[in-house]
Amino acid sequence: MNGAESLVHSLLHSGVTTCFANPGTSEMHFVAALDRIPGMHCVLGLFEGVVTGAADGYARMAEKPAATLLHCGPGLANGLANLHNARRAATPVVNVVGDQATYHRPLDPPLTADTDGFARGVSGWVRTSMDVRSVGADAAAAVQAAMIAPGQVATLILPSDTSWNEGGVVAEALPRLPTPLSAPGQVDAAAAVLRRGGQGVVLLLGGVALHAEGLALAHRIAAATGCRVVAQGSNARMARGQGRLAVERVPYVVDVAVQFMQGTRQLILAGARKPVTFFAYPGKVQSAVPEDAAVHVLARPEQDVVEALARLADALDCPKVAAPHNGERPHAGSGALTPEAVAATLGALMPDGAVIADESVSFGRGFFANTKAAAPHDWLNVTGGAIGGGMPMATGAALGAPGRRVINLQADGSALYTVQALWTQAREKLDITTVIFANRKYQILLGELANVGANPGRTALDMMDLGNPDIDWTRLAGSLGVEAARADTAERFADILAHALRRPGPFLVELPV
Amino acid sequence: MNGAESLVHSLLHSGVTTCFANPGTSEMHFVAALDRIPGMHCVLGLFEGVVTGAADGYARMAEKPAATLLHCGPGLANGLANLHNARRAATPVVNVVGDQATYHRPLDPPLTADTDGFARGVSGWVRTSMDVRSVGADAAAAVQAAMIAPGQVATLILPSDTSWNEGGVVAEALPRLPTPLSAPGQVDAAAAVLRRGGQGVVLLLGGVALHAEGLALAHRIAAATGCRVVAQGSNARMARGQGRLAVERVPYVVDVAVQFMQGTRQLILAGARKPVTFFAYPGKVQSAVPEDAAVHVLARPEQDVVEALARLADALDCPKVAAPHNGERPHAGSGALTPEAVAATLGALMPDGAVIADESVSFGRGFFANTKAAAPHDWLNVTGGAIGGGMPMATGAALGAPGRRVINLQADGSALYTVQALWTQAREKLDITTVIFANRKYQILLGELANVGANPGRTALDMMDLGNPDIDWTRLAGSLGVEAARADTAERFADILAHALRRPGPFLVELPV
Repeated sequence: MNGAESLVHSLLHSGVTTCFANPGTSEMHFVAALDRIPGMHCVLGLFEGVVTGAADGYARMAEKPAATLLHCGPGLANGLANLHNARRAATPVVNVVGDQATYHRPLDPPLTADTDGFARGVSGWVRTSMDVRSVGADAAAAVQAAMIAPGQVATLILPSDTSWNEGGVVAEALPRLPTPLSAPGQVDAAAAVLRRGGQGVVLLLGGVALHAEGLALAHRIAAATGCRVVAQGSNARMARGQGRLAVERVPYVVDVAVQFMQGTRQLILAGARKPVTFFAYPGKVQSAVPEDAAVHVLARPEQDVVEALARLADALDCPKVAAPHNGERPHAGSGALTPEAVAATLGALMPDGAVIADESVSFGRGFFANTKAAAPHDWLNVTGGAIGGGMPMATGAALGAPGRRVINLQADGSALYTVQALWTQAREKLDITTVIFANRKYQILLGELANVGANPGRTALDMMDLGNPDIDWTRLAGSLGVEAARADTAERFADILAHALRRPGPFLVELPV
Repeated sequence: MNGAESLVHSLLHSGVTTCFANPGTSEMHFVAALDRIPGMHCVLGLFEGVVTGAADGYARMAEKPAATLLHCGPGLANGLANLHNARRAATPVVNVVGDQATYHRPLDPPLTADTDGFARGVSGWVRTSMDVRSVGADAAAAVQAAMIAPGQVATLILPSDTSWNEGGVVAEALPRLPTPLSAPGQVDAAAAVLRRGGQGVVLLLGGVALHAEGLALAHRIAAATGCRVVAQGSNARMARGQGRLAVERVPYVVDVAVQFMQGTRQLILAGARKPVTFFAYPGKVQSAVPEDAAVHVLARPEQDVVEALARLADALDCPKVAAPHNGERPHAGSGALTPEAVAATLGALMPDGAVIADESVSFGRGFFANTKAAAPHDWLNVTGGAIGGGMPMATGAALGAPGRRVINLQADGSALYTVQALWTQAREKLDITTVIFANRKYQILLGELANVGANPGRTALDMMDLGNPDIDWTRLAGSLGVEAARADTAERFADILAHALRRPGPFLVELPV
């Protein structure tokens, strides 16, 4: 058995059954091993950002890591932006990077780069397998490392000779390391704050606190204590819709966020960090949280936040309560393609169990209100601010949640970073409906220009403008094998969306907004 | 004057007049400064790999650096692969990366990443401007550093507050640092080898030795001594065509390269490194150069190789000789779209002064023979093996060599990494003719699978296959604003190419091969 075969067997033993790949020469033995060993679903991406973003989306839904397969330092480099997003989402990823043979690297052939150095910035764990006998054990260790709570990127670098050499040893799965619990003092302090009650007590949820179980606990705590429950600005996965506590996220725009957090006197962090603004701006605050607010940590992101919420609910003797009712399901929007109309249509039409991959950026800031009464669904944000996460994330989510409909809410500018994902969606016949918000500009930057006090002229505006020439999204999707249509009104959008959500496989709707 | 304004002024003072940009919030003051300060041509790329690859192509032709403008660590990460190619081409690039404000970075907002760490792997020089008063001087130092022979990537990281703070100071250009000369002993040793003559004396050219002046000197030396002249496998820029010494490159495929270098007894390196194979393969050599060949270094890559060749020609008393005649200009090919027919058509039709941006990968390996008698042209290779270099390089080359026709010879698989470049070509109305070799597979990997001794089955073959669905290149180009056509025969290719080369602006020809 060669090293590559021991790698594939060991990954399978550790429960890794999906591999997103953009392989090159140094990974040929891995690819060949996939033929001989059944059980690994190997999915080709035409660009590494698709591969890593898909691995992020997959694990958010499957709750176990996928493997990637990348080619040398530059291939890894192309995947770094979405690994950065995965890092900020605390997504488990087993990031496999093939590289030069151990004995060839010192000769510095052209493709040689600082693979290890590139990996460190996004990985919680990096190891290079220098010996064929250790490849299997290293693979098992990578899976174990990726699953350390709350989840992280584990990068395994495989020199090509350790793949092709004979002497591979298959490793069994390593035990999952226990998630640290919140200390009693953390729960007691939060309970004391909530018991005192009063104005301005805010419970801020992040991580798995936003999955269904955590939200149900937060709902009980809020019902019993009257505290306000909010969510981080960007979240890996959030249970939403009918029957789930509707929580708003801390807004992106600083002034709006300040207003949102106004009056907060006691902030309890549950799997979240204290919010800071996405960027600094001249003369503006760096956190929307009032300076005089007291901050309490119920559970740090790496602690078991759901267990902590359960202990907190127990400590407060919170009674069981009925699931929240978020109002009537909205009716599809009409008229112009406003954010409200688009959200209403989504809220009306999204099927039970939908997965929303949201990279709608500026257009989608108000989507939550009109979707809180939609059918139960999961909402995934691009978490690290590295644009180009949406389409790959949707691709991976569809594979990580088979049988569920994925809806990718996608800004046009961001979509162009990783548009190759559409081809993978077509090849794998994934049930993904992409909605492109084609405003033909970097709308967010126009706001940012104002925020930093800059006054744009022609040259600056040109740098925000995606028109001249306009991008034809229906042709672009079609060229990559995905059917598409354009809708100019909310009514037409509803018709196309209803059709797209019923049909199997991918479909793209372009909305000129 | 704020820091951003001092940056733009200082870049202009140092001769940097083109900026390839994909800006974000932290670069808004730079963008705003461009409005107020005339003289900088700012070119938008929709993905950072386009930006950095274009900066590479620009400087290869303009012989001075362009600036980039990238957004934070993840934006830089997206540009790393083509900065890797620029590093291997020894291209001067002033790589400007905006980043979090100095005082905001410690709060670790979501987009914060290891910007400096990512930069180090591709840059010969990295500096973060921590004070508004130093921004101008740092910009001048970056340009100076980028131009250190043979050229390198100089990365300047600009925290947003050093851009918007007042107190910027414009810096004058710093002197260009002198290029070290070869030591007398290096020239003497090479002269002695060439004087002895005999079988198997090979002069291997790299870097600027492959520009017109270096080639003319090599031609004189070869005419006088009978030595063989060859070129590195991949080269930043090579003068070719009628009147230029026709030199073959060391082939990519190991066995072919071994045959190519067979009989070499004395290898003289002129601006080149000793060739090593691109990858290691089980049981194959790591260099095509015979083990018993003696290696002499006339000029290291960082030494003045043209001056060394001139001294060598003087030392050998090489007489002036007529410019080489490379035979008759070929006739356009006919029949099937073989590599030979395609090359003949290119050789027949390419206009005087054309610039070839070559990422043809496996299909283009034999293109040199049928183009050596074409009109004089420059040939640019993707140098670092990071695929996705071709289209951006063509984009930058067109801006770095105004008035000259750029022909991008482009493999389909590689094109998909940075296809967004077509949009920039359309927006800037660049005279670029792209020829896509659409074999609908990663052909090179099929060869590599065999080379590493792997035996592909269905799963492996799927990972090399770009069909299912087929990519429609004419629609894809059209969606990004570039007219396109498909040719199924050599005759039709000649018709379309002749048309495309005459019309202003970009055009794409898809060749199903």
